[in-house]
Amino acid sequence: MSDNTDTAALLSFADRLADTAGAAILPHFRADLDVDNKLADGFDPVTVGDRAGEAAMRALIEAEAPDHGILGEEHGPARLDAEHVWVLDPIDGTRAFICGLPTWGTLIGLRRNGRPVLGVMDQPFVRERFYGDGARAWRTYDGRETALRTRACDRLEDAIFCTTHPRLFTGAQCPVYEEIEATVRTARFGTDCYGYCMLAAGHVDLVIEPGLQAYDIVALVPIVEGAGGVVTTWTGGAPDDGGDIIASGDPRLHDAMLTRLARIGT
Amino acid sequence: MSDNTDTAALLSFADRLADTAGAAILPHFRADLDVDNKLADGFDPVTVGDRAGEAAMRALIEAEAPDHGILGEEHGPARLDAEHVWVLDPIDGTRAFICGLPTWGTLIGLRRNGRPVLGVMDQPFVRERFYGDGARAWRTYDGRETALRTRACDRLEDAIFCTTHPRLFTGAQCPVYEEIEATVRTARFGTDCYGYCMLAAGHVDLVIEPGLQAYDIVALVPIVEGAGGVVTTWTGGAPDDGGDIIASGDPRLHDAMLTRLARIGT
Repeated sequence: MSDNTDTAALLSFADRLADTAGAAILPHFRADLDVDNKLADGFDPVTVGDRAGEAAMRALIEAEAPDHGILGEEHGPARLDAEHVWVLDPIDGTRAFICGLPTWGTLIGLRRNGRPVLGVMDQPFVRERFYGDGARAWRTYDGRETALRTRACDRLEDAIFCTTHPRLFTGAQCPVYEEIEATVRTARFGTDCYGYCMLAAGHVDLVIEPGLQAYDIVALVPIVEGAGGVVTTWTGGAPDDGGDIIASGDPRLHDAMLTRLARIGT
Repeated sequence: MSDNTDTAALLSFADRLADTAGAAILPHFRADLDVDNKLADGFDPVTVGDRAGEAAMRALIEAEAPDHGILGEEHGPARLDAEHVWVLDPIDGTRAFICGLPTWGTLIGLRRNGRPVLGVMDQPFVRERFYGDGARAWRTYDGRETALRTRACDRLEDAIFCTTHPRLFTGAQCPVYEEIEATVRTARFGTDCYGYCMLAAGHVDLVIEPGLQAYDIVALVPIVEGAGGVVTTWTGGAPDDGGDIIASGDPRLHDAMLTRLARIGT
């Protein structure tokens, strides 16, 4: 890619990263898996596909954009002080992957000087791909491109809400979380990256998740922002390094939810 | 279809039912939805797609198999005393559908003299279709057919477990449910028909759900049984009319779980 780092070239490169990751991962989807446990006390599966996907993307970056940094889930960081840093999660939604459900995704984010400026979420089994550059967002499916726009929803009572798992909220988070879940129109669990993409597409209104890593969220920020939504930490800070994350399709709902979430700290 | 009611002809007809339902439903997926509330006190969305899908399938049955009965979710029953009765759920997983997630499915089951003998689960957006006739089960994707087999898993501690939503369990069910969720290797919510199909495919070990209708389960019984699994009510009865349902990939796990579930009644 040499010095050609305009948005179109970066998007085209991100497409190639998604292609190579999908080719590496798909043979392992719904195959017999050797599941490691990264955490001795939990269930955080790492599949062969996860590692193969990241290795394939890293090889492409090293070959064609060797001055770019890399922050991945599986392997160590490289050149994090570079202007452009690719933030990679080959299989976001490893539990969905292990269950054979087609709701995991490959996350390819690009931070420029620390800020997420471009993101791709690819689902190679469904064969759809979501894109965002912070100013616009779109998806491709079956050769067609569809623009993504969040929808208006300023009341929690009307919101369709997604989160990974209700039991991830702990301690002082619990009463606030439970009030949110009891108030929303409907709650959906285990949505992973699809929750954010469906928020960008105007089908989901709110995603709240504790303790995300940078590679869980960086790719999704330009997609949500490009569709008109908002992504911050629970205290309204930048989501660029992960943390406790909230995404809203409607900025008015986001403001109201930040007020609600502030109660956790009191 | 006249009198030609052998399995191959019935499967071919079920394929056509799935085709016509998919064509009727897909234009409404991820489109702006008018969501009715069937239950005033809850959130049980019925989409335009749901009704369109069932109407399309009913029209085909009335035209080509007018002596067959029909039991659907949206419209009234017809000829339930017929030897062959089609049991239809155009969109199983309406919440997934409304969230834009590709994990809903069209369920097309056939009861012969009351027993589920043939089932199809179609996901037209992903473009995969699951089949079972009680003796074998398979899926098609991208022009390829793959046989489905459940996997061995005789310990709850090792099981991947799916259910619609933990809060659907009530009263005396709660402590038994909570013990199950706390024991399994991992729990996944909101899987709807995909949970059973992934059980048939050997990626999920256990599905337990309270209060299913016949149209939620009849199509899935021949798929699970055809793959080597077991589906019964929680008391070990036939799942032919729905109810509280348990499906296991490994018959040994099923027996152990029936013993556990029997505690609910004591």
